[in-house]
Amino acid sequence: MTDKSCCDGEATAARSSGSRVVHCRDGFRWDGVPVAEYKAPGTSWNGVSRTTLVGNQDEQTSFHVRYFEIAPSGYTSLEQHSHEHAVLVLRGRGVVQLGEQTHDLAFGDLVYVAPNEVHQFRNTAAAEPLGFICVVDARRDAGVAVAREQTAK
Amino acid sequence: MTDKSCCDGEATAARSSGSRVVHCRDGFRWDGVPVAEYKAPGTSWNGVSRTTLVGNQDEQTSFHVRYFEIAPSGYTSLEQHSHEHAVLVLRGRGVVQLGEQTHDLAFGDLVYVAPNEVHQFRNTAAAEPLGFICVVDARRDAGVAVAREQTAK
Repeated sequence: MTDKSCCDGEATAARSSGSRVVHCRDGFRWDGVPVAEYKAPGTSWNGVSRTTLVGNQDEQTSFHVRYFEIAPSGYTSLEQHSHEHAVLVLRGRGVVQLGEQTHDLAFGDLVYVAPNEVHQFRNTAAAEPLGFICVVDARRDAGVAVAREQTAK
Repeated sequence: MTDKSCCDGEATAARSSGSRVVHCRDGFRWDGVPVAEYKAPGTSWNGVSRTTLVGNQDEQTSFHVRYFEIAPSGYTSLEQHSHEHAVLVLRGRGVVQLGEQTHDLAFGDLVYVAPNEVHQFRNTAAAEPLGFICVVDARRDAGVAVAREQTAK
């Protein structure tokens, strides 16, 4: 049997017994999965969207899998928290700040953000979004914004 | 400061305070990260490698992030276990069997394998490997092989 779409007009992911396959479409959108804002509007971030792929349905996983996309010239909050990030880049180019260091990022690169590391992701490309998977513990603390002057030498 | 490689000839990942950036190279290899066999040699699988990206160093995450690659005509074990899988395809094409259903897979597709779902990944491409990220709980049970006739109608 090959892949079948559901026909109720709502759920488009192919399911069997709780499992599911959710196809990725052009523009890094997944069938039936809403794209949300990164966090509440504020001045600490710009041009970031969040797509939760695993963790907000009926899964029992101890982790959540999210896809973040940063528009050209956009950036996530400069922040820190005790929970860790496992990030894998899916599209575009950019940089990640880890403490006082900045590292270039491209497709497939892995970023592990250790507990309490001050970090920020920034899109340095002129046109293409920077998109990445970010896995976190399901139970985790909230991030705390960090002022730029607290990290600059 | 831009990305710097280490100079001790061993660790090539760029680190700061426990965090790290590990660059992905051509052929889906990550700097300094060994490629291992999928599991102990056996007849239930063919042509599969495993690269552990997060979870076997000093991380405290409740999850592990692995990259699996299946050679053309290769396949993982047909198995089941109580722990869940969150899979995202990075390269190639193939199929996943979930229970009695088979679903086509291509770049970016997400697979959630529910507890105790019988599952198997197979590469259906003639030349390119099928590669995917697979996230699992750090604490998990072992898989149990399932005979093909147990799932066929």
